[in-house]
Amino acid sequence: MAETQNMEGTAPVAAEEEERDPESNSLLQPLIKRSRTLSSSPLAIVGTKVSHIESLDYEINENDLFKHDWRRRSRIEVLQYILMKWTLAFLVGFLTGVIATLINLSIENIAGYMTGFIYFTGANLALTLFATFLCVMFAPTAAGPGIPEIKAYLNGVDTPNMFGAAPLIVKIFGSIGAVSAGLDLGKEGPLVHIGACISSLLAQGGPDNHRVKWKWMRYFNNDRDRRDLITCGSAAGVCAAFRAPVGGVLFALEEVATWWRSALLWRTFFSTAIVVVVLRASIEYCNSGKCGLFGKGGLIMFDVSDVSVYYHLLDVVPVVVIGVIGGLLGSLYNHLLHKVLILYNLINQKGRICKMLLSLSVALFTSVCLYFLPFLAKCSPCDSDLLGTICPSTGGTGNFKQFNCPPGYYNDLASILHTSNDDAVRNIFSTSTPNEYHPTSLLIHFGLYCILSLFTFGIAVPSGLFLPIILMGSSYGRLLGICAAPYTKIDQGLYAVLGAAALMAGSMRMTVSLCVIFLELTNNLLLLPITMIVLLIAKTVGDCFNPSIYEIILELKGLPFLEAHPEPWMRNLTVGELADAKSPVVVLCGVEKVARIVEVLRNTTHNGFPVVDQGVTPPVGCPSGATELHGLILRAHLVAALKKKWFLSEKRRTEEWEVREKFTSVDLAERGITIEEVIVTKDEMELYMDLHPLTNTTPYTVVESMSVAKAMVLFRQVGLRHMLIVPKYQAAGVPPVVGILTRQDLRASNILTAFPHLEETERKNK
Amino acid sequence: MAETQNMEGTAPVAAEEEERDPESNSLLQPLIKRSRTLSSSPLAIVGTKVSHIESLDYEINENDLFKHDWRRRSRIEVLQYILMKWTLAFLVGFLTGVIATLINLSIENIAGYMTGFIYFTGANLALTLFATFLCVMFAPTAAGPGIPEIKAYLNGVDTPNMFGAAPLIVKIFGSIGAVSAGLDLGKEGPLVHIGACISSLLAQGGPDNHRVKWKWMRYFNNDRDRRDLITCGSAAGVCAAFRAPVGGVLFALEEVATWWRSALLWRTFFSTAIVVVVLRASIEYCNSGKCGLFGKGGLIMFDVSDVSVYYHLLDVVPVVVIGVIGGLLGSLYNHLLHKVLILYNLINQKGRICKMLLSLSVALFTSVCLYFLPFLAKCSPCDSDLLGTICPSTGGTGNFKQFNCPPGYYNDLASILHTSNDDAVRNIFSTSTPNEYHPTSLLIHFGLYCILSLFTFGIAVPSGLFLPIILMGSSYGRLLGICAAPYTKIDQGLYAVLGAAALMAGSMRMTVSLCVIFLELTNNLLLLPITMIVLLIAKTVGDCFNPSIYEIILELKGLPFLEAHPEPWMRNLTVGELADAKSPVVVLCGVEKVARIVEVLRNTTHNGFPVVDQGVTPPVGCPSGATELHGLILRAHLVAALKKKWFLSEKRRTEEWEVREKFTSVDLAERGITIEEVIVTKDEMELYMDLHPLTNTTPYTVVESMSVAKAMVLFRQVGLRHMLIVPKYQAAGVPPVVGILTRQDLRASNILTAFPHLEETERKNK
Repeated sequence: MAETQNMEGTAPVAAEEEERDPESNSLLQPLIKRSRTLSSSPLAIVGTKVSHIESLDYEINENDLFKHDWRRRSRIEVLQYILMKWTLAFLVGFLTGVIATLINLSIENIAGYMTGFIYFTGANLALTLFATFLCVMFAPTAAGPGIPEIKAYLNGVDTPNMFGAAPLIVKIFGSIGAVSAGLDLGKEGPLVHIGACISSLLAQGGPDNHRVKWKWMRYFNNDRDRRDLITCGSAAGVCAAFRAPVGGVLFALEEVATWWRSALLWRTFFSTAIVVVVLRASIEYCNSGKCGLFGKGGLIMFDVSDVSVYYHLLDVVPVVVIGVIGGLLGSLYNHLLHKVLILYNLINQKGRICKMLLSLSVALFTSVCLYFLPFLAKCSPCDSDLLGTICPSTGGTGNFKQFNCPPGYYNDLASILHTSNDDAVRNIFSTSTPNEYHPTSLLIHFGLYCILSLFTFGIAVPSGLFLPIILMGSSYGRLLGICAAPYTKIDQGLYAVLGAAALMAGSMRMTVSLCVIFLELTNNLLLLPITMIVLLIAKTVGDCFNPSIYEIILELKGLPFLEAHPEPWMRNLTVGELADAKSPVVVLCGVEKVARIVEVLRNTTHNGFPVVDQGVTPPVGCPSGATELHGLILRAHLVAALKKKWFLSEKRRTEEWEVREKFTSVDLAERGITIEEVIVTKDEMELYMDLHPLTNTTPYTVVESMSVAKAMVLFRQVGLRHMLIVPKYQAAGVPPVVGILTRQDLRASNILTAFPHLEETERKNK
Repeated sequence: MAETQNMEGTAPVAAEEEERDPESNSLLQPLIKRSRTLSSSPLAIVGTKVSHIESLDYEINENDLFKHDWRRRSRIEVLQYILMKWTLAFLVGFLTGVIATLINLSIENIAGYMTGFIYFTGANLALTLFATFLCVMFAPTAAGPGIPEIKAYLNGVDTPNMFGAAPLIVKIFGSIGAVSAGLDLGKEGPLVHIGACISSLLAQGGPDNHRVKWKWMRYFNNDRDRRDLITCGSAAGVCAAFRAPVGGVLFALEEVATWWRSALLWRTFFSTAIVVVVLRASIEYCNSGKCGLFGKGGLIMFDVSDVSVYYHLLDVVPVVVIGVIGGLLGSLYNHLLHKVLILYNLINQKGRICKMLLSLSVALFTSVCLYFLPFLAKCSPCDSDLLGTICPSTGGTGNFKQFNCPPGYYNDLASILHTSNDDAVRNIFSTSTPNEYHPTSLLIHFGLYCILSLFTFGIAVPSGLFLPIILMGSSYGRLLGICAAPYTKIDQGLYAVLGAAALMAGSMRMTVSLCVIFLELTNNLLLLPITMIVLLIAKTVGDCFNPSIYEIILELKGLPFLEAHPEPWMRNLTVGELADAKSPVVVLCGVEKVARIVEVLRNTTHNGFPVVDQGVTPPVGCPSGATELHGLILRAHLVAALKKKWFLSEKRRTEEWEVREKFTSVDLAERGITIEEVIVTKDEMELYMDLHPLTNTTPYTVVESMSVAKAMVLFRQVGLRHMLIVPKYQAAGVPPVVGILTRQDLRASNILTAFPHLEETERKNK
């Protein structure tokens, strides 16, 4: 992060670093090799490229201009703002719903019309090529699920080119291509990213180069409102993906968002309600057959509500087994995926051609497996006891595919491989069909999807993790159900649902949101108690081995995510000691020479500078010559003021009326100008600038004796970018600010490189 | 709150106060008349008595003893702590589930066997007398729902005698009595309070006078862990009340808790899962007929899943109407209930006899109405088209009560009045019975329950608000359904469900949690989209008129709840100005004379004192004579140290080994000793005490230029009790701490009394 400072005097601990087991639980190996100091790491992998990342300013910047502007806001403007807020939340829901409908419509129509190996494989390769080409050429950031980056954004880390128009469009079409190609990936993760992109674009008034410059847009042109809207967007995305409005809200709350408040709960709920209305309307419209193959499923994706759930307390035993194995498998999956992603990163870095070839080989492998593996399965006779089913199936979506079998027989493996991923899940979840699948067929399916899900996720197409894990988990669950059949009365379809839930919890480590998503997916409330138990057990087991898959990806990409809990050893370190290990803080005077400002801006990369007044009129009862901490000024505001040339010819403070007349906060709201773009003449260098009106007079501060653990809690809870350290001593000559802390300074791994002895104590305790 | 300080120089603004409309939206009139200064208001109404209330210490108190103790914690002890945490969460769920089962069992068995007016009324009066007697004599705090007090506790306000053994027992038996008596109140609110009581008792190791003094209990004897457990308890209570595990978690999250983190989400979810398992097991056991009349309903309370929900986009019109009217009625209900509660408070304050008489008259009125009103209804012929129903009903719970009608006919009003409240709701929710109820019967029911719910809530018995509102709302919804029948195809039972949801949202202003609770109550996922819309509309409409019913009660009781959002005018006030309006802060020296400590403790009521060292060795490069802010010491710790007589004969700092040998943090953990109980001899008065080892060296601080708005965000987000104000000036002679802020200082109404001009600007803006 650009605002961090060098940690000096750090002993080289490279030897120790090498020793560390790269698979150790607490410290994952990131893809970017970091040097031993803090300042060299404002880098993270965005898309497949190493990019500079920035922190976000969620704190309200209370400077004179803001206060003035804010005081002038009339009641009308306040209402306008509130109206805007809800309109945007509406639009996020509406657009996400419309796009989700379009994606579903395209996928189901494209995927539904393909038969025959050559045609099947050729079409799949073409679709994969299309998706990969889009991703590689136009928006590398659109590859992958995007959820880790959204998580990082809501935690306060901005990744470049992540939420623009290009990723949005590539994500939509790339997702259609990749899912239609039959690759082992879902549209769920991409839909979450799509929701976030829509939100970001709406909040900033359009794509980067064609922004709408309406006056009221300025109220939304701040990181805080954008953050809230992106939270709405991600909830809307999950809702659109699973048709699960409450699950979407909870997913955003439990997994994605860092800050949360009651008002936001309500607004995200509104957005997801709109998504549901749009989805329902489109499904209703399509039910009349106007949309090709789309719309048969209704709003519930995998309805298992028709089965009666009877279980007794003894049935808890197989449920516990499902949970434990699900947790083990989930953490094993996380471990292996981590390895594969490191390998893929090496390949992807070799260039665009390599990326494309990788995607195409995965697509070819997938097509071959999907087409030929069903030949291994035996044909099963149709069960005439099952009422209301057509066997062998006639359409594209049926449960009993004939494939290579004689009439009256069906190929069970073809039923779950020769179909779209959604339909495959539906078929495995199917209830009251205890003899539909042979154990070997399910074993082949499970093995195949274990391999596919590991090797498909990292390729350069928009991909989600939900569906691959559900596919794996459902066949694992159903297999287990067949094994447990003699001892229990639970339906095999429910075993499949529980298996999918267990593997999800084992890999993603969510509880409440997964529970509600599964509830909404399967429409069976009676399942709730056992689903809860399975999820709790699987998460507990998984947590014993490694962190959740999203945390692994965040760490791998080098995104400086700030965890909720401080490490135990952080209590033994004060922020004063942390500040001492950094280079001295760069301080500006209240009225500063232009030359010094330009110099500071050019020679440092800090994004905030404390503003201090020297020799001020002392407060009552004290000798003169006091220094005063006036506040904190942001780099962006300094650059904007330089560009506007708000200079003074003599060293004096501007009067209040001058401020009101000359400056507006609209000028300050402009973003993205760098100091290199600002031209200051030699004469101007000798002038002065009054920083007082631009300074945030209410920065959050901590006393130097504060422990790092508590400082971190404050930093994360309030959502800060800079935190000033004030001295605990009070005397003439003591500087009023002794340091400045940023996100990077509070990251456990960074502190440990600067204070290796803490790591020693940490290890000893383990 | 005891730690607050006088606000001096506050002009009397009584005249202005009188002018204020007591029904004005933003400022509700509390029951306790407050004087114009801050310090005189550590009072609130607890139960029906005015009591002193205290703030809670959620902040981790990092003094030397804590750090030492904490560093010594072995890995085993950490594991022990984690195990304890989960065991307690398990026990909370388990006990709440068991108690809920017992309550249900008792209520359904008692209420099921009553017929005939005299017997009916007599039994009701006896049961009410029993419940009131318990409440009045043994635990006045057990009256009412208890949810506002839990909300306040989790916000940081401790109310005395609220979570002990007496309220728990009285709540259990009182609730059984009051609900069996047929009063218009539910067991839902009491169950939430019961869950919280169990949590609190478990966390502190038993009732006040018989605490288990196990060593590992000390880890839980802090406000922080207790708070988390009470959150679990309230979620478990809601879950037990509605058999809604996810709804319970969300209720705790949305309505009850102030602080929330992901780990807590998981733990509350675990507790509610246990509750569900216990409930299911007991229902399974009781289904075989071993529990009398209990257990017929199954886990879903008001199952409407058997009806198919068909609706088109046009059906949104009646849905919107339900929502709007629900919001209006809900806010009107809040308004009227506020008035009634003020009236009741006057009656209740007259003494115990008055309280009992009030309860009995309400019970008598209820019984008379319930018994005689059905005579107003006409008999309806049984509809032979309805398959599977017995008409007239034979048992106690049926849908078609014969009452005064000839065979083959039923009295629709008797079906919903001559039954328990739960069954009444079930009957009104009944689906596919479009002609079951006459509009006049529903109108009578609605009118009756409007009156009853207003006048029942405030009497001295354990009571909940959920069920009365559901009863009102369901008949209102069904009435509306009958009116809209010609234009829509939505089932009348669904209208009843939506009406109940709308009135709940209009009065309680919850969204997501209500939505999930209704989902879990009615087991119909297809209802979700319209329920969401109804809830959103009703809440929006209600918010236009007044705050939620819980906020009204909190305000009325004078509980200093800290809102999530600062008032707009708080940006125009700095914490320095706030501190100037208070009396100067009382500061202690690092090594202080015993006499001074005793004097300070006796003459002030503050709960925290800044500790400052004078003339310390200066930091590098500064002239000597610096003062140092060492930290904050708590009253409880000072008193404990005085009691243990940790005195020094000369003025010196204790060495670290001395601290380790002499003091333990177990001694400090003792609670509830007052300075009056400590005897200090005259000789001892001349000795010294070293406060350094007891001082929290890492208090949260703000600079005096910080705006009150931002300080409040910090205060609430981090969960503080004291916040130190440090000067922005740095010079010899400036005190290192210029003020101390507490909860009361940050309350909007308190600030406005001290700074009347802010109110002016606020009014002008409106």
